[in-house]
Amino acid sequence: MIQETAKIPQATAKRLPLYYRFIQNLHSSGKQRVSSKELSEAVKVDSATIRRDFSYFGALGKKGYGYNVNYLLTFFRKTLDQDETTKVGLIGVGNLGTAFLHYNFLKNNNTKIEVAFDVSPEKIGSDISDVPIYHMDDIEEKLKELNIEVVILTVPAHVAQTITDRLIDADVKGILNFTPARLNVPPAIRIHHIDLAVELQSLVYFLKNYPQDTEMS
Amino acid sequence: MIQETAKIPQATAKRLPLYYRFIQNLHSSGKQRVSSKELSEAVKVDSATIRRDFSYFGALGKKGYGYNVNYLLTFFRKTLDQDETTKVGLIGVGNLGTAFLHYNFLKNNNTKIEVAFDVSPEKIGSDISDVPIYHMDDIEEKLKELNIEVVILTVPAHVAQTITDRLIDADVKGILNFTPARLNVPPAIRIHHIDLAVELQSLVYFLKNYPQDTEMS
Repeated sequence: MIQETAKIPQATAKRLPLYYRFIQNLHSSGKQRVSSKELSEAVKVDSATIRRDFSYFGALGKKGYGYNVNYLLTFFRKTLDQDETTKVGLIGVGNLGTAFLHYNFLKNNNTKIEVAFDVSPEKIGSDISDVPIYHMDDIEEKLKELNIEVVILTVPAHVAQTITDRLIDADVKGILNFTPARLNVPPAIRIHHIDLAVELQSLVYFLKNYPQDTEMS
Repeated sequence: MIQETAKIPQATAKRLPLYYRFIQNLHSSGKQRVSSKELSEAVKVDSATIRRDFSYFGALGKKGYGYNVNYLLTFFRKTLDQDETTKVGLIGVGNLGTAFLHYNFLKNNNTKIEVAFDVSPEKIGSDISDVPIYHMDDIEEKLKELNIEVVILTVPAHVAQTITDRLIDADVKGILNFTPARLNVPPAIRIHHIDLAVELQSLVYFLKNYPQDTEMS
Protein backbone atom coordinates (compact mmCIF):
# COMPACT_ATOMS: atom_id res chain seq x y z
CA MET A 1 0.00 0.00 0.00
CA ILE A 2 2.45 2.66 1.15
CA GLN A 3 5.20 1.72 -1.24
CA GLU A 4 7.22 4.87 -0.80
CA THR A 5 7.53 4.73 2.97
CA ALA A 6 9.56 2.78 5.46
CA LYS A 7 7.86 1.00 8.29
CA ILE A 8 6.22 3.55 10.56
CA PRO A 9 6.04 3.20 14.35
CA GLN A 10 3.01 1.46 15.80
CA ALA A 11 2.11 4.57 17.83
CA THR A 12 1.97 6.64 14.64
CA ALA A 13 -0.07 4.03 12.78
CA LYS A 14 -2.61 4.00 15.60
CA ARG A 15 -3.25 7.71 15.17
CA LEU A 16 -3.87 7.54 11.41
CA PRO A 17 -7.60 6.69 11.58
CA LEU A 18 -8.04 9.58 14.01
CA TYR A 19 -6.37 12.06 11.66
CA TYR A 20 -8.37 10.67 8.79
CA ARG A 21 -11.71 11.14 10.50
CA PHE A 22 -10.98 14.74 11.43
CA ILE A 23 -9.76 15.58 7.93
CA GLN A 24 -12.99 14.10 6.53
CA ASN A 25 -14.96 16.45 8.80
CA LEU A 26 -12.87 19.42 7.68
CA HIS A 27 -13.42 18.52 4.06
CA SER A 28 -17.19 18.17 4.59
CA SER A 29 -17.30 21.64 6.12
CA GLY A 30 -15.60 23.10 3.03
CA LYS A 31 -12.27 23.96 4.66
CA GLN A 32 -9.31 24.18 2.24
CA ARG A 33 -6.32 24.16 4.56
CA VAL A 34 -5.46 23.42 8.15
CA SER A 35 -2.50 24.25 10.38
CA SER A 36 -0.81 21.67 12.60
CA LYS A 37 -1.97 23.80 15.55
CA GLU A 38 -5.63 23.50 14.49
CA LEU A 39 -5.17 19.79 13.88
CA SER A 40 -3.58 19.48 17.28
CA GLU A 41 -6.46 21.18 19.07
CA ALA A 42 -9.04 19.09 17.25
CA VAL A 43 -7.54 15.63 17.64
CA LYS A 44 -5.91 16.29 21.03
CA VAL A 45 -2.44 15.24 19.94
CA ASP A 46 0.39 17.75 20.42
CA SER A 47 1.52 19.46 17.22
CA ALA A 48 5.13 18.23 17.45
CA THR A 49 3.78 14.65 17.43
CA ILE A 50 1.54 15.46 14.45
CA ARG A 51 4.46 16.91 12.49
CA ARG A 52 6.61 13.89 13.33
CA ASP A 53 3.81 11.48 12.38
CA PHE A 54 3.24 13.23 9.05
CA SER A 55 6.97 13.30 8.33
CA TYR A 56 6.95 9.52 7.87
CA PHE A 57 4.85 10.03 4.77
CA GLY A 58 6.99 12.68 3.12
CA ALA A 59 6.24 16.39 2.79
CA LEU A 60 2.51 16.75 3.33
CA GLY A 61 2.53 20.41 4.31
CA LYS A 62 4.35 23.72 3.87
CA LYS A 63 5.68 26.00 6.58
CA GLY A 64 3.46 29.06 7.13
CA TYR A 65 0.71 27.58 4.97
CA GLY A 66 -0.25 24.45 6.81
CA TYR A 67 -1.70 21.38 5.14
CA ASN A 68 -3.93 21.20 2.09
CA VAL A 69 -7.13 19.43 3.17
CA ASN A 70 -7.89 17.81 -0.18
CA TYR A 71 -4.39 16.47 -0.48
CA LEU A 72 -4.47 15.10 3.06
CA LEU A 73 -7.84 13.47 2.47
CA THR A 74 -6.68 11.73 -0.71
CA PHE A 75 -3.46 10.71 0.98
CA PHE A 76 -5.06 9.22 4.09
CA ARG A 77 -7.82 7.53 2.11
CA LYS A 78 -5.23 5.77 0.00
CA THR A 79 -3.07 4.96 3.01
CA LEU A 80 -5.89 3.58 5.10
CA ASP A 81 -7.35 1.79 2.08
CA GLN A 82 -10.68 3.50 2.57
CA ASP A 83 -11.87 2.68 -0.92
CA GLU A 84 -12.20 -0.93 0.09
CA THR A 85 -14.60 -2.10 2.78
CA THR A 86 -13.25 -4.68 5.19
CA LYS A 87 -15.81 -7.24 6.31
CA VAL A 88 -15.76 -8.07 10.00
CA GLY A 89 -17.32 -10.84 12.08
CA LEU A 90 -18.63 -10.31 15.61
CA ILE A 91 -18.17 -13.22 18.01
CA GLY A 92 -20.53 -12.90 20.98
CA VAL A 93 -23.70 -10.78 21.03
CA GLY A 94 -23.90 -9.81 24.71
CA ASN A 95 -24.16 -6.20 25.83
CA LEU A 96 -20.77 -5.24 24.43
CA GLY A 97 -21.39 -7.10 21.16
CA THR A 98 -24.81 -5.47 20.82
CA ALA A 99 -23.18 -2.07 21.38
CA PHE A 100 -20.88 -2.80 18.43
CA LEU A 101 -23.84 -3.73 16.21
CA HIS A 102 -25.62 -0.48 17.07
CA TYR A 103 -22.47 1.58 16.68
CA ASN A 104 -22.52 1.09 12.91
CA PHE A 105 -18.91 1.52 11.86
CA LEU A 106 -19.89 2.22 8.28
CA LYS A 107 -20.81 5.84 8.99
CA ASN A 108 -17.23 7.04 9.08
CA ASN A 109 -15.08 4.09 8.20
CA ASN A 110 -14.94 1.35 5.66
CA THR A 111 -15.22 -1.52 8.08
CA LYS A 112 -18.52 -3.33 8.33
CA ILE A 113 -19.78 -6.09 10.61
CA GLU A 114 -21.35 -8.57 8.20
CA VAL A 115 -22.19 -11.43 10.51
CA ALA A 116 -22.49 -12.18 14.22
CA PHE A 117 -22.44 -15.34 16.32
CA ASP A 118 -23.91 -16.29 19.68
CA VAL A 119 -25.22 -19.34 21.53
CA SER A 120 -28.44 -17.83 22.88
CA PRO A 121 -31.51 -19.41 21.19
CA GLU A 122 -33.50 -16.15 21.27
CA LYS A 123 -30.75 -14.32 19.36
CA ILE A 124 -29.87 -16.97 16.75
CA GLY A 125 -31.82 -16.45 13.54
CA SER A 126 -32.63 -12.81 14.33
CA ASP A 127 -30.66 -9.77 13.28
CA ILE A 128 -29.58 -6.49 14.86
CA SER A 129 -28.97 -3.43 12.65
CA ASP A 130 -29.39 -5.76 9.64
CA VAL A 131 -26.57 -8.04 10.77
CA PRO A 132 -27.69 -11.69 10.91
CA ILE A 133 -26.88 -13.70 14.06
CA TYR A 134 -25.86 -17.34 13.64
CA HIS A 135 -25.04 -20.13 16.08
CA MET A 136 -21.41 -20.33 17.26
CA ASP A 137 -21.29 -23.81 15.64
CA ASP A 138 -21.44 -22.11 12.24
CA ILE A 139 -18.36 -19.90 12.76
CA GLU A 140 -15.96 -21.82 10.49
CA GLU A 141 -18.48 -22.32 7.69
CA LYS A 142 -19.86 -18.77 7.64
CA LEU A 143 -16.56 -16.92 8.00
CA LYS A 144 -15.02 -18.93 5.15
CA GLU A 145 -18.13 -18.53 2.99
CA LEU A 146 -18.12 -14.73 3.48
CA ASN A 147 -14.33 -14.55 3.24
CA ILE A 148 -14.05 -12.73 6.60
CA GLU A 149 -10.58 -12.57 8.15
CA VAL A 150 -11.12 -9.97 10.90
CA VAL A 151 -13.25 -10.51 13.99
CA ILE A 152 -14.25 -8.68 17.16
CA LEU A 153 -14.20 -11.03 20.14
CA THR A 154 -16.75 -10.21 22.85
CA VAL A 155 -17.38 -13.58 24.51
CA PRO A 156 -17.04 -14.53 28.21
CA ALA A 157 -13.37 -14.87 29.18
CA HIS A 158 -13.62 -18.57 30.08
CA VAL A 159 -14.49 -19.58 26.50
CA ALA A 160 -12.20 -17.06 24.76
CA GLN A 161 -9.30 -19.45 24.06
CA THR A 162 -11.51 -22.32 22.84
CA ILE A 163 -13.30 -20.02 20.42
CA THR A 164 -10.01 -18.44 19.32
CA ASP A 165 -8.71 -21.90 18.37
CA ARG A 166 -11.74 -22.26 16.11
CA LEU A 167 -11.21 -18.79 14.63
CA ILE A 168 -7.69 -19.88 13.66
CA ASP A 169 -9.18 -22.93 11.93
CA ALA A 170 -11.49 -20.56 10.08
CA ASP A 171 -8.42 -18.70 8.69
CA VAL A 172 -9.00 -15.54 10.70
CA LYS A 173 -5.97 -13.20 10.48
CA GLY A 174 -6.85 -10.47 12.98
CA ILE A 175 -8.72 -10.43 16.30
CA LEU A 176 -9.85 -7.38 18.26
CA ASN A 177 -9.96 -8.98 21.71
CA PHE A 178 -12.27 -7.34 24.24
CA THR A 179 -12.11 -10.21 26.73
CA PRO A 180 -9.75 -10.03 29.73
CA ALA A 181 -8.12 -13.28 28.46
CA ARG A 182 -4.63 -13.17 26.94
CA LEU A 183 -4.95 -15.43 23.90
CA ASN A 184 -2.42 -17.91 22.53
CA VAL A 185 -2.25 -17.74 18.74
CA PRO A 186 0.33 -18.53 16.04
CA PRO A 187 2.71 -15.58 15.30
CA ALA A 188 1.07 -14.85 11.92
CA ILE A 189 -2.19 -13.88 13.61
CA ARG A 190 -2.49 -10.34 14.89
CA ILE A 191 -4.34 -9.59 18.10
CA HIS A 192 -5.15 -6.12 19.38
CA HIS A 193 -6.19 -6.43 22.99
CA ILE A 194 -8.46 -3.90 24.66
CA ASP A 195 -8.95 -4.76 28.31
CA LEU A 196 -11.56 -2.46 29.79
CA ALA A 197 -10.40 -3.06 33.36
CA VAL A 198 -6.81 -2.27 32.42
CA GLU A 199 -7.89 0.95 30.69
CA LEU A 200 -9.76 2.03 33.80
CA GLN A 201 -6.88 1.13 36.12
CA SER A 202 -4.47 2.97 33.88
CA LEU A 203 -6.58 6.14 34.06
CA VAL A 204 -6.75 5.89 37.85
CA TYR A 205 -3.00 5.29 38.05
CA PHE A 206 -2.28 8.38 35.97
CA LEU A 207 -4.65 10.51 38.03
CA LYS A 208 -2.94 9.49 41.25
CA ASN A 209 0.61 9.81 40.02
CA TYR A 210 0.52 12.54 37.41
CA PRO A 211 -2.19 14.89 38.68
CA GLN A 212 -0.77 17.98 36.98
CA ASP A 213 0.25 16.22 33.79
CA THR A 214 -1.56 17.78 30.85
CA GLU A 215 -0.13 15.50 28.17
CA MET A 216 -2.85 13.99 25.99
CA SER A 217 -3.17 10.27 25.67
CA MET B 1 3.25 7.21 45.54
CA ILE B 2 6.44 5.94 43.88
CA GLN B 3 8.79 8.26 45.69
CA GLU B 4 11.98 6.58 44.62
CA THR B 5 11.32 6.66 40.88
CA ALA B 6 11.48 9.24 38.16
CA LYS B 7 8.55 9.73 35.86
CA ILE B 8 8.03 6.57 33.84
CA PRO B 9 6.92 6.55 30.19
CA GLN B 10 3.20 6.42 29.52
CA ALA B 11 3.59 3.16 27.54
CA THR B 12 5.20 1.49 30.58
CA ALA B 13 2.55 2.84 32.95
CA LYS B 14 -0.17 1.41 30.73
CA ARG B 15 1.26 -2.09 31.10
CA LEU B 16 1.42 -2.03 34.91
CA PRO B 17 -2.16 -3.19 35.56
CA LEU B 18 -1.58 -6.04 33.13
CA TYR B 19 1.56 -7.21 34.95
CA TYR B 20 -0.23 -6.84 38.25
CA ARG B 21 -3.14 -9.03 37.24
CA PHE B 22 -0.88 -11.82 36.01
CA ILE B 23 1.27 -11.71 39.12
CA GLN B 24 -1.89 -11.97 41.24
CA ASN B 25 -2.81 -15.12 39.31
CA LEU B 26 0.67 -16.57 39.83
CA HIS B 27 0.49 -15.83 43.53
CA SER B 28 -2.95 -17.46 43.81
CA SER B 29 -1.61 -20.61 42.16
CA GLY B 30 1.19 -20.79 44.75
CA LYS B 31 4.09 -19.99 42.43
CA GLN B 32 7.19 -18.53 44.17
CA ARG B 33 9.20 -17.16 41.27
CA VAL B 34 8.80 -16.31 37.63
CA SER B 35 11.25 -15.65 34.79
CA SER B 36 10.90 -12.73 32.39
CA LYS B 37 10.41 -15.34 29.64
CA GLU B 38 7.41 -16.86 31.47
CA LEU B 39 6.03 -13.41 32.16
CA SER B 40 6.50 -12.55 28.51
CA GLU B 41 4.59 -15.58 27.28
CA ALA B 42 1.76 -14.98 29.70
CA VAL B 43 1.17 -11.28 29.17
CA LYS B 44 2.19 -11.23 25.48
CA VAL B 45 4.76 -8.50 25.90
CA ASP B 46 8.30 -9.25 24.69
CA SER B 47 10.79 -9.96 27.50
CA ALA B 48 13.12 -7.06 26.59
CA THR B 49 10.20 -4.67 27.07
CA ILE B 50 9.33 -6.31 30.39
CA ARG B 51 12.90 -5.95 31.63
CA ARG B 52 13.01 -2.32 30.51
CA ASP B 53 9.64 -1.60 32.15
CA PHE B 54 10.74 -3.19 35.42
CA SER B 55 14.05 -1.32 35.35
CA TYR B 56 12.20 1.96 36.00
CA PHE B 57 11.35 0.65 39.46
CA GLY B 58 14.82 -0.47 40.45
CA ALA B 59 16.12 -4.02 40.77
CA LEU B 60 13.08 -6.26 41.01
CA GLY B 61 14.77 -9.45 39.85
CA LYS B 62 18.04 -11.33 39.74
CA LYS B 63 19.76 -12.80 36.70
CA GLY B 64 19.34 -16.59 36.49
CA TYR B 65 16.72 -16.57 39.23
CA GLY B 66 13.96 -14.46 37.80
CA TYR B 67 11.54 -12.46 39.89
CA ASN B 68 10.21 -13.22 43.34
CA VAL B 69 6.41 -13.40 43.03
CA ASN B 70 5.65 -12.18 46.57
CA TYR B 71 7.96 -9.23 46.17
CA LEU B 72 6.46 -8.31 42.80
CA LEU B 73 2.95 -8.59 44.18
CA THR B 74 3.70 -6.29 47.13
CA PHE B 75 5.51 -3.91 44.86
CA PHE B 76 2.79 -3.63 42.24
CA ARG B 77 0.03 -3.44 44.83
CA LYS B 78 1.73 -0.49 46.45
CA THR B 79 2.51 1.12 43.11
CA LEU B 80 -1.00 0.74 41.73
CA ASP B 81 -2.49 1.69 45.08
CA GLN B 82 -4.53 -1.48 45.19
CA ASP B 83 -5.24 -1.17 48.89
CA GLU B 84 -7.56 1.71 48.17
CA THR B 85 -10.72 1.32 46.09
CA THR B 86 -11.39 4.07 43.57
CA LYS B 87 -15.05 4.89 43.15
CA VAL B 88 -16.19 5.39 39.57
CA GLY B 89 -19.32 6.87 38.00
CA LEU B 90 -20.87 5.54 34.78
CA ILE B 91 -22.45 8.14 32.51
CA GLY B 92 -24.86 6.49 30.06
CA VAL B 93 -26.45 3.06 30.55
CA GLY B 94 -26.90 1.92 26.95
CA ASN B 95 -25.50 -1.38 25.69
CA LEU B 96 -21.90 -0.41 26.32
CA GLY B 97 -22.69 1.06 29.74
CA THR B 98 -24.65 -2.05 30.69
CA ALA B 99 -21.69 -4.18 29.63
CA PHE B 100 -19.52 -2.22 32.09
CA LEU B 101 -22.03 -2.79 34.91
CA HIS B 102 -22.03 -6.54 34.25
CA TYR B 103 -18.26 -6.69 33.87
CA ASN B 104 -17.78 -6.06 37.60
CA PHE B 105 -14.33 -4.55 37.89
CA LEU B 106 -14.11 -5.43 41.54
CA LYS B 107 -13.18 -9.05 40.86
CA ASN B 108 -9.58 -8.27 39.98
CA ASN B 109 -9.09 -4.59 40.57
CA ASN B 110 -9.85 -2.01 43.15
CA THR B 111 -12.02 0.16 40.99
CA LYS B 112 -15.76 0.02 41.51
CA ILE B 113 -18.67 1.62 39.68
CA GLU B 114 -20.75 3.10 42.51
CA VAL B 115 -23.38 5.01 40.58
CA ALA B 116 -24.77 5.27 37.03
CA PHE B 117 -26.76 7.91 35.15
CA ASP B 118 -29.15 7.78 32.22
CA VAL B 119 -32.18 9.63 30.85
CA SER B 120 -34.37 6.62 30.10
CA PRO B 121 -37.41 6.53 32.47
CA GLU B 122 -37.43 2.72 32.61
CA LYS B 123 -33.80 2.65 33.82
CA ILE B 124 -33.90 5.51 36.34
CA GLY B 125 -34.61 4.25 39.85
CA SER B 126 -33.60 0.68 39.04
CA ASP B 127 -30.20 -0.90 39.50
CA ILE B 128 -27.95 -3.25 37.54
CA SER B 129 -25.45 -5.45 39.42
CA ASP B 130 -26.38 -3.48 42.57
CA VAL B 131 -25.39 -0.16 41.02
CA PRO B 132 -28.21 2.41 41.30
CA ILE B 133 -29.18 4.37 38.18
CA TYR B 134 -30.09 8.05 38.58
CA HIS B 135 -31.31 10.71 36.18
CA MET B 136 -28.61 12.68 34.31
CA ASP B 137 -29.94 15.81 36.03
CA ASP B 138 -28.52 14.48 39.30
CA ILE B 139 -24.92 14.10 38.05
CA GLU B 140 -23.43 17.10 39.88
CA GLU B 141 -25.23 16.42 43.14
CA LYS B 142 -24.57 12.66 43.29
CA LEU B 143 -20.94 12.74 42.16
CA LYS B 144 -20.10 15.40 44.75
CA GLU B 145 -22.07 13.59 47.47
CA LEU B 146 -20.23 10.32 46.77
CA ASN B 147 -16.90 12.09 46.22
CA ILE B 148 -16.43 10.49 42.81
CA GLU B 149 -13.75 11.99 40.56
CA VAL B 150 -13.44 9.32 37.84
CA VAL B 151 -16.13 8.52 35.29
CA ILE B 152 -16.68 6.26 32.30
CA LEU B 153 -18.44 8.14 29.51
CA THR B 154 -20.72 6.00 27.33
CA VAL B 155 -23.29 8.46 26.02
CA PRO B 156 -24.25 9.25 22.39
CA ALA B 157 -21.54 11.35 20.70
CA HIS B 158 -23.81 14.36 20.08
CA VAL B 159 -24.32 14.98 23.81
CA ALA B 160 -20.77 14.09 24.91
CA GLN B 161 -19.40 17.65 25.14
CA THR B 162 -22.47 19.06 26.94
CA ILE B 163 -22.30 16.32 29.54
CA THR B 164 -18.52 16.69 29.85
CA ASP B 165 -18.99 20.38 30.70
CA ARG B 166 -21.26 19.30 33.55
CA LEU B 167 -18.76 16.67 34.70
CA ILE B 168 -16.16 19.43 35.00
CA ASP B 169 -18.61 21.42 37.14
CA ALA B 170 -18.97 18.31 39.29
CA ASP B 171 -15.18 18.34 39.93
CA VAL B 172 -14.45 15.19 37.91
CA LYS B 173 -10.69 14.74 37.39
CA GLY B 174 -10.54 11.80 34.95
CA ILE B 175 -12.76 10.64 32.10
CA LEU B 176 -12.56 7.32 30.26
CA ASN B 177 -14.16 8.45 26.99
CA PHE B 178 -15.79 5.71 24.88
CA THR B 179 -17.62 8.11 22.58
CA PRO B 180 -16.17 8.99 19.17
CA ALA B 181 -16.19 12.68 20.25
CA ARG B 182 -12.91 14.46 21.02
CA LEU B 183 -13.70 16.41 24.17
CA ASN B 184 -12.56 19.90 25.13
CA VAL B 185 -11.56 20.06 28.80
CA PRO B 186 -9.23 22.20 30.95
CA PRO B 187 -5.61 20.92 31.02
CA ALA B 188 -5.93 19.66 34.60
CA ILE B 189 -8.52 17.06 33.58
CA ARG B 190 -7.22 13.79 32.20
CA ILE B 191 -9.05 12.03 29.40
CA HIS B 192 -8.23 8.57 28.12
CA HIS B 193 -9.99 8.07 24.84
CA ILE B 194 -10.96 4.65 23.52
CA ASP B 195 -12.55 4.95 20.11
CA LEU B 196 -13.88 1.56 19.06
CA ALA B 197 -13.95 2.48 15.36
CA VAL B 198 -10.35 3.67 15.51
CA GLU B 199 -9.27 0.45 17.23
CA LEU B 200 -10.93 -1.61 14.51
CA GLN B 201 -9.44 0.50 11.71
CA SER B 202 -6.04 0.27 13.31
CA LEU B 203 -6.23 -3.54 13.37
CA VAL B 204 -7.27 -3.61 9.72
CA TYR B 205 -4.48 -1.20 8.80
CA PHE B 206 -1.88 -3.40 10.49
CA LEU B 207 -3.20 -6.53 8.83
CA LYS B 208 -2.94 -4.95 5.39
CA ASN B 209 0.44 -3.33 5.87
CA TYR B 210 2.28 -5.57 8.29
CA PRO B 211 0.95 -9.04 7.47
CA GLN B 212 4.02 -10.89 8.72
CA ASP B 213 4.65 -8.68 11.71
CA THR B 214 4.46 -10.73 14.86
CA GLU B 215 5.05 -7.93 17.34
CA MET B 216 2.44 -7.86 20.04
CA SER B 217 0.38 -4.76 20.67
